[in-house]
Amino acid sequence: IEKNDDKALQNLLKDFHYADIAEILDEISLEEAIYVIKLLDSETTSDVLMEIDEDNREKVLKNLSAKEIAEEVEELDTDDAADIILELPEERQQEVISKIEDEEHKAEITELITYDEDTAGGLMAKELVKVYETWTVAGCLRRIRGQAKEVTRVHSIYVVDKQEKLIGRLSLKDLIVAKSDQKIADIYISNVDFVGVDDDVEDVAKVMAKYDLEAIPVVDENQILLGRITIDDIVDVLKEEAEKDYQLAAGITGDVEADDSILELTRARLPWLFLGLVGGVGAFLIMEGFQDSFKEKAILFFFTPLIAAMAGNVGVQSSAIIVQGLANDDVRGSVNGRLIKEMLLAALNGIILAIFLFLFVWFYKGELDKAIAISVSLVMVIIVAGLIGTFVPLFLNKRGVDPAIATGPFITTSNDILGILLYFWIAELIIAFFG
Amino acid sequence: IEKNDDKALQNLLKDFHYADIAEILDEISLEEAIYVIKLLDSETTSDVLMEIDEDNREKVLKNLSAKEIAEEVEELDTDDAADIILELPEERQQEVISKIEDEEHKAEITELITYDEDTAGGLMAKELVKVYETWTVAGCLRRIRGQAKEVTRVHSIYVVDKQEKLIGRLSLKDLIVAKSDQKIADIYISNVDFVGVDDDVEDVAKVMAKYDLEAIPVVDENQILLGRITIDDIVDVLKEEAEKDYQLAAGITGDVEADDSILELTRARLPWLFLGLVGGVGAFLIMEGFQDSFKEKAILFFFTPLIAAMAGNVGVQSSAIIVQGLANDDVRGSVNGRLIKEMLLAALNGIILAIFLFLFVWFYKGELDKAIAISVSLVMVIIVAGLIGTFVPLFLNKRGVDPAIATGPFITTSNDILGILLYFWIAELIIAFFG
Repeated sequence: IEKNDDKALQNLLKDFHYADIAEILDEISLEEAIYVIKLLDSETTSDVLMEIDEDNREKVLKNLSAKEIAEEVEELDTDDAADIILELPEERQQEVISKIEDEEHKAEITELITYDEDTAGGLMAKELVKVYETWTVAGCLRRIRGQAKEVTRVHSIYVVDKQEKLIGRLSLKDLIVAKSDQKIADIYISNVDFVGVDDDVEDVAKVMAKYDLEAIPVVDENQILLGRITIDDIVDVLKEEAEKDYQLAAGITGDVEADDSILELTRARLPWLFLGLVGGVGAFLIMEGFQDSFKEKAILFFFTPLIAAMAGNVGVQSSAIIVQGLANDDVRGSVNGRLIKEMLLAALNGIILAIFLFLFVWFYKGELDKAIAISVSLVMVIIVAGLIGTFVPLFLNKRGVDPAIATGPFITTSNDILGILLYFWIAELIIAFFG
Repeated sequence: IEKNDDKALQNLLKDFHYADIAEILDEISLEEAIYVIKLLDSETTSDVLMEIDEDNREKVLKNLSAKEIAEEVEELDTDDAADIILELPEERQQEVISKIEDEEHKAEITELITYDEDTAGGLMAKELVKVYETWTVAGCLRRIRGQAKEVTRVHSIYVVDKQEKLIGRLSLKDLIVAKSDQKIADIYISNVDFVGVDDDVEDVAKVMAKYDLEAIPVVDENQILLGRITIDDIVDVLKEEAEKDYQLAAGITGDVEADDSILELTRARLPWLFLGLVGGVGAFLIMEGFQDSFKEKAILFFFTPLIAAMAGNVGVQSSAIIVQGLANDDVRGSVNGRLIKEMLLAALNGIILAIFLFLFVWFYKGELDKAIAISVSLVMVIIVAGLIGTFVPLFLNKRGVDPAIATGPFITTSNDILGILLYFWIAELIIAFFG
């Protein structure tokens, strides 16, 4: 298809949804993608651009002139437009903005790119339907027709006073159901949720999810209506957040994908592996230190991988539950209560597992003292691992650090070392007692 | 507040959003919660009921009569109503349904509870705004006013033909902008996304996220319009999905929360820990088997925790990337290509790490043969761990098993054992070569 007939290709693509075209473009070569993009009309191109992978978008944009990018940007909603511009190198940003013809669009985009991308301001769009409390329903409907043409989807209609302060909302449904001579001031709902322009996007996502909102207005410190955030942007935030936490738990930093280059993937993975290496060397030094105490008891050394694995697993389990609870805001109550609960939980798990281990060692080796030493230390190691897994994320969270870092390699490694150390100490004590 | 003044409490609660009331109820005792619920008006009660924790909801429902539940259910949208009824014990379900007074609502709920909760049918609501292609804009607006009163939020208006087949959609905005004497047939958009009633909810979520939809109609095999799914339900699906994957990766099965009972948490965690125990015993047996080969080389045994940890970490990293790629549908191309890439990646990481380990062992112990043996085996172990981490989820996915199971304890444990085995084999070979 690629090489010959422009018209045929154009007709073919016309029937596709832009998200499908984006998917195709992600799979073909850069030259082919640019060739296809130049065939598309400018509205489709801009939508397609928003949907393709960030890496590919960067490459495509490099091959377009500032004028061409400005044309695409004019077709986009202000939030998407600002995102595209922020992906450009700084010197090109001003060039593209200066080529935007629509003055209002230009001013709005210039405002939006000043906000931090992790705040409500960085996520919001300027497109919204706004009415003044003094209007009538009929006048309102007339003017909404004008405003609505610019807005892809009308969610809520925001009601402002003369100073542009947000005072309430109006659902389209209420407007349709109302009589045409009623005043907006009489029918609007004054109870309106909103977020501040500097609020963190994760908090915005929580508010929207909690109250099942599909759009939320954004105001500045004086309650002046600045923009609105829609749920589809929040869906993206939630997905990214979930992926980031998942990767952190697996020991991967940065937002990488399976198709990224080997160097990018190495950069995301190597630091955590290095942490594991340091932990392993630590375990080696501990074992070497205990070498003399257990000259004739090599069997104890053979259980270190088991101890390390159990300490790591228990730590990851407890920290995962706490990290998730913190993310959902359902970890309440005292830290002590939580630690006591985790201790009981770990003790229960630990005792059940230790019974199996005790029976195995006793029957297989017939050495009661070692069987007791190994299984008692297992219980202690599991309890301590559970406590650390619970405490570390709670502590990080109090300190304002993302507790998701705690799960995964960090907890695993520290629990490995601590677990092995504890194991040898306790085993030494118990064997000395029997010996 | 709890103990004295009903009126004051009622007034206080009136100003709260139902999601906030639900949050309060989750924290107080069951008797207090039921006491508060009985004070609320029935519309608020039903909304609050939908928002509180599933465990608490179950307890509250136990304390309400079938008649009381039926009253709550009448206030709810059909999808939420069906969810509540499905949470009841089977014998109570019919009792509650029979007490619902509104015949239409009763029929709709009876239909909805027949669908599997993991399908589009289990997620959809019957509330929607539907117009026939033969209506005019004016007639349409009039009738929508009637339909819209039942629907909490109008997203899209679905256009059906005389046989109730979905043929297109109409946005409220288009309807407002259109002239009142136009026919629906002339202004509707025939290009409409929809899902089948038996489609998997995860697929529905993907379609909606991909095309940025806020609502999607659900049809049966004859294209008859049955209901619609809104994005807020999808947000819940995405969150649950992400939490499930995160927990699986941490070795926790079932949907547990930090506040669940110790027994529930044990049931979710113990099986994976047991797997770890079996793995540890396996590692013990391997080390015992190699005991004689390395009589004078205890140092090799001291590195097993390091080897096991590295094998586990690398395996989790590679499987996490593949699991996530599969979830987002961006793992394309051949399995071989992916394995080769992972091999190169693992080799690169492995060699960098092995250099550090080599230098440590050489300088610290001064034994060149052991330093070489340990670091060469580390590279091999990392490569194999990476390959297994990549292959297992791809294989499970091909077999129709959720690849998320592969990350976490399963990969860690098998890589631990395999890594240790490989390590001793290679170390034995290399030391024999030098020796």
